[in-house]
Amino acid sequence: MYPPAPKNQGRRHFVSTAAALGAAALASPARAHAPPDADLPPWTTRQGAPVLSPPYGVPSKFEKNIVRHPHSHGTFPTAASSVTPLQDLHGIITPSGLHFERHHAGVPTIDPAQHRLLVHGLVDRPLIFSMQDLLRFPSVSRTYFLECSGNTPGWAKGTPNATVADTHGLLSCSEWTGIPLAAILAEAGAQDRARWILAEGADAAAMTRSFPIEKALDDALLAYGQNGEMLRPEQGYPLRLFLPGFEGNMSVKWLRRLKLGDAPFETREETSRYTDLMPDGRARQFTFVMEAKSVITFPSGGQNLNGPGFYEIRGIAWSGRGRITHVEISTDGGFSWQSAKLQAPVLKKCLTRFTVPWHWNGAPAVLQSRARDDTGYWQPTHADLVAARGLNSGYHYNGIHGWRVGADGAVTNDG
Amino acid sequence: MYPPAPKNQGRRHFVSTAAALGAAALASPARAHAPPDADLPPWTTRQGAPVLSPPYGVPSKFEKNIVRHPHSHGTFPTAASSVTPLQDLHGIITPSGLHFERHHAGVPTIDPAQHRLLVHGLVDRPLIFSMQDLLRFPSVSRTYFLECSGNTPGWAKGTPNATVADTHGLLSCSEWTGIPLAAILAEAGAQDRARWILAEGADAAAMTRSFPIEKALDDALLAYGQNGEMLRPEQGYPLRLFLPGFEGNMSVKWLRRLKLGDAPFETREETSRYTDLMPDGRARQFTFVMEAKSVITFPSGGQNLNGPGFYEIRGIAWSGRGRITHVEISTDGGFSWQSAKLQAPVLKKCLTRFTVPWHWNGAPAVLQSRARDDTGYWQPTHADLVAARGLNSGYHYNGIHGWRVGADGAVTNDG
Repeated sequence: MYPPAPKNQGRRHFVSTAAALGAAALASPARAHAPPDADLPPWTTRQGAPVLSPPYGVPSKFEKNIVRHPHSHGTFPTAASSVTPLQDLHGIITPSGLHFERHHAGVPTIDPAQHRLLVHGLVDRPLIFSMQDLLRFPSVSRTYFLECSGNTPGWAKGTPNATVADTHGLLSCSEWTGIPLAAILAEAGAQDRARWILAEGADAAAMTRSFPIEKALDDALLAYGQNGEMLRPEQGYPLRLFLPGFEGNMSVKWLRRLKLGDAPFETREETSRYTDLMPDGRARQFTFVMEAKSVITFPSGGQNLNGPGFYEIRGIAWSGRGRITHVEISTDGGFSWQSAKLQAPVLKKCLTRFTVPWHWNGAPAVLQSRARDDTGYWQPTHADLVAARGLNSGYHYNGIHGWRVGADGAVTNDG
Repeated sequence: MYPPAPKNQGRRHFVSTAAALGAAALASPARAHAPPDADLPPWTTRQGAPVLSPPYGVPSKFEKNIVRHPHSHGTFPTAASSVTPLQDLHGIITPSGLHFERHHAGVPTIDPAQHRLLVHGLVDRPLIFSMQDLLRFPSVSRTYFLECSGNTPGWAKGTPNATVADTHGLLSCSEWTGIPLAAILAEAGAQDRARWILAEGADAAAMTRSFPIEKALDDALLAYGQNGEMLRPEQGYPLRLFLPGFEGNMSVKWLRRLKLGDAPFETREETSRYTDLMPDGRARQFTFVMEAKSVITFPSGGQNLNGPGFYEIRGIAWSGRGRITHVEISTDGGFSWQSAKLQAPVLKKCLTRFTVPWHWNGAPAVLQSRARDDTGYWQPTHADLVAARGLNSGYHYNGIHGWRVGADGAVTNDG
């Protein structure tokens, strides 16, 4: 083939340069002359696949293992979850085909021509909207993360084989398009007494959650678009609520009803479920916001470093309260910290990609990251979180996470 | 079903509100009480599909017609193009499965383990990189549009049935991840004499183009990621050049070779092809940049307005020179203009979504948009473009585009 594959694939040389980025590459010296045509690979000597095969494109067959995987806590296949393979992704957009899933009664197949949204309760004009109605409203598109409140089962450690999909994969990020909920409330005439809103899904779980009207008037969306196209079925096609920065289950999918009331509705999903049991036996309720958090995606659990040398540490940070302002990295288990570079633009309630150049000397190392948001809040340590909240709750874990790099280059979960 | 479908689907009422967005909705008044369970739709009474069906998700079956379509000029299926269905998309991200295609010898199936990039010519250290080598370099992710220089066959009018996919669909936008080309040139030791770079693809067309070294040192990328995952095969998997804002063919896909020289290489694709023939018989060569341009995607050709009332005019604007600063809309064929709202964040060399509220009074109308970028350049009229460049060239048309709305609500192409 041309250029030729190095005869000895294991041979490497390390070329140090004055590159502004502080990097040095692994590469092979080139031969002076081009080889004869006989060396050309088949993809150069033969015509490729025709245009429009297929009309809706799919990934390369060489990427067929980059898929969602089951999350450990699934019991029934329709009341389960799957995780985004964060270790294999770049940038901040999650491909819609790899968005994490968490369903309580599976993914309904909803005919958008039949779907309706009812808005009632403390409104002057109870209304029913078709999708055709909703698509005529003024629209906005914004890129936001979505994270399950149960993401990162980090309270108890001891899962050395976990990947970052296992530990943080109930997290994805999309460009969402929809209608500001405030416009719909104005249309229906929300009454002054209305303080809370019940959102109900059209799936067999009829998922219901309450949220404060202040959120509706701030940045809540009725979303129908995801990454440029209509929502995927797993993300609520044809309509979902989207509450930026709030725990994922509140962004009710397959949305069919909004009821305005003067108090929270105290549904099963905010009393029995999705509350945080504290050490004293009381439960935190209505813990909406996903606090500042970060994780290194490379190197991460299950990956291997191919010998000492230059690597770029890469990761993602996010905060349900606003923008990420700082990410710091430790390569020595938290003894010392250095600033990471944040990829622009840094958007509020959105994933932020960070990078740090790293020269690995071949010794065992523990890599950690911590993020700060524009409220001044720093991502806490595991110890601080346990001291504050104990070990009874499975939700809202956002502690500093570490990966252990062995002398052999194998990366394992340090919790 | 619940909420019920209105008995008379044609009945509409127009509720005017004080909504800050200036909108008023079409909706139906709700019934006071919920109907019995017997009215529930099947998606509420039955469990949905299990999690992970499929592990790599796909759009709803109700969206099966939202696909790429052939572009008219295709002769051979491997030397042809397909267009992005802009009329059906939201926001600025193009789903990777709907990214436009333009291939000269089809889509090769390249094994990334076998793929190599050769960097040679006026360099101190000719080098061959494997994909494994390249993935270790410092990376950046940026959202950029990509537009074929042949997008918008607008020089001659007279295609009333054209959709916006037909007129502008050789245009897409993705979050691209890759290595700044400057870092690779530093690694190979670009010599002072090097002024131009030849890029060559590994497909059977061995697509080759020259570009100035200034672009390499500015914002050129060696891209391997697209919208969070590895490049799609149609977009150059596993590696492509990406030259932000330049005509699409220069961002050579399936990149296998970069050669540095002291002059342009004068390949077929920059002498016989991809030049602009002027009225005096001379040709413009090396017309890299795609100038400021915009188009309305709703309402657009082939769509129908369902009677007078409120509509949101939506469209996209872009410039290969930088950021869009203004978009203006005319609803009277260019007699008067009003400012559109630009969706934040406005990124350079990226699609910018714009919106304008519009109350259609039911009379025939011609809708047009014009964009300005941060160099102060305004998108020109068709007449201005023809006066400057004549009608010999099929490339770099960026004239103001119009859609005609008939009294029956049917939207047709006004060129």
